[in-house]
Amino acid sequence: MKKKPLILISNDDGITSKGIRTLTEVMAELGEVVVVAPDSPQSGMGHAITVNNMLRLDKSDVFEDIGVEAYECSGTPADCVKLAKHHVLKDRKPDLVVSGINHGSNSSVSVLYSGTMSAAIEAALEGLPAIGFSLCDYAHNADFSHIRHYIKKITSEAIEKGIPANVALNVNFPSIVHGDIQGIKICRQAKARWQENFEERKDPYGRVYYWLVGDFINEDTGLDTDVWALDNGYISIVPCKYDMTAYESFPAISQWDI
Amino acid sequence: MKKKPLILISNDDGITSKGIRTLTEVMAELGEVVVVAPDSPQSGMGHAITVNNMLRLDKSDVFEDIGVEAYECSGTPADCVKLAKHHVLKDRKPDLVVSGINHGSNSSVSVLYSGTMSAAIEAALEGLPAIGFSLCDYAHNADFSHIRHYIKKITSEAIEKGIPANVALNVNFPSIVHGDIQGIKICRQAKARWQENFEERKDPYGRVYYWLVGDFINEDTGLDTDVWALDNGYISIVPCKYDMTAYESFPAISQWDI
Repeated sequence: MKKKPLILISNDDGITSKGIRTLTEVMAELGEVVVVAPDSPQSGMGHAITVNNMLRLDKSDVFEDIGVEAYECSGTPADCVKLAKHHVLKDRKPDLVVSGINHGSNSSVSVLYSGTMSAAIEAALEGLPAIGFSLCDYAHNADFSHIRHYIKKITSEAIEKGIPANVALNVNFPSIVHGDIQGIKICRQAKARWQENFEERKDPYGRVYYWLVGDFINEDTGLDTDVWALDNGYISIVPCKYDMTAYESFPAISQWDI
Repeated sequence: MKKKPLILISNDDGITSKGIRTLTEVMAELGEVVVVAPDSPQSGMGHAITVNNMLRLDKSDVFEDIGVEAYECSGTPADCVKLAKHHVLKDRKPDLVVSGINHGSNSSVSVLYSGTMSAAIEAALEGLPAIGFSLCDYAHNADFSHIRHYIKKITSEAIEKGIPANVALNVNFPSIVHGDIQGIKICRQAKARWQENFEERKDPYGRVYYWLVGDFINEDTGLDTDVWALDNGYISIVPCKYDMTAYESFPAISQWDI
């Protein structure tokens, strides 16, 4: 009999969120699972790591009911993956790292701000196959039931066929409001952006403060993007790499007189 | 007479650091300058943005002596750029955004963890030409005198020739210990990584905590990387894009039975 794969799970919404509970239940059907996740929400943390503070890491009984070993960490998602690899699992190598399920989309440029994807990309940097899962529904009690089957299918294939080296998959699911899921598309990251705005308020002492608010604007009309896929009821898979070099711009910059 | 360019400056070491002081002095020779920078150090913040908290933005007199308008912000480097574009400069468009000078290298994969580069990449996302500058010297009183000339030269060319769209430049300078600078190389991001370790300590109450410590390991033997350039006394310029799609992995993943 084949040995069960070892699957490490993290997220950015925190260890008690519904998304990581769903993901852990699905992964427990596929392999041996260890969870190392933030002890509080870390949304929008991007690829932050904790360098100016110490980190706590404590055993958690959050997944005791399904027999899954879990740890909660005071740091960011990227810290969790580092602590998992170099401390919790220092004598064992995970066969796969999964992150999520994020409450909210991580399509397009959101991948840069996403704590969920930073955990997956950190794993890829460490040479581990990795997938980040997100559902386009920000509600804390979002319904994940319609995507469990797809998560299991995608993860099984990833374990069976292997994820290309240095790549982390960014998987986004349309929310239930789109009706039946149309299928799965391998996509590129849409060239969309957030159109930000700052809401100005005054605190009880008369001092001004700001809240970041914004609208997601898709200026990319391609039919091969993750935003198009999600808007049309498909699951999007964007393979992401961490080499950010813009090779195509070398000729222009090489002309500079420097 | 040509209008002076409007240059927005941010960083991640905070508005009082020596690096941003040097950068602001050099930029003031080239254009009209506005500084919006964090009120405290934000190293390792990656592309974090503040979504679960409010932001403060206050006028600062840090650069009053050189006649430069400045604001300090309670948020991350990416927050600073957003606040600058959509609030401080909402009726004016900067001709260039520069970030730094970071105290420490942002070569190779450090670009992912770097607050300095997140400010530059955020600007690129917003459609603004951007450059992040870093010196390979972590000391708070690092000597930036040998690189002023190069910063002015690179920035002048960027203003004159234009940075390709959707690209932010990641410029790293060797520290003075390498002796005379050999020149400037346009490079790719080295495939190096941090080999992490966690130092375990006990607090005065007997509870365990951890410090992230690590060594930078370069496994990339290419002569066209930023790490090679810096190790050999050259200034490295890596053009960075924010499209993280790993197009080359599409064929493999398209074979999956999903």
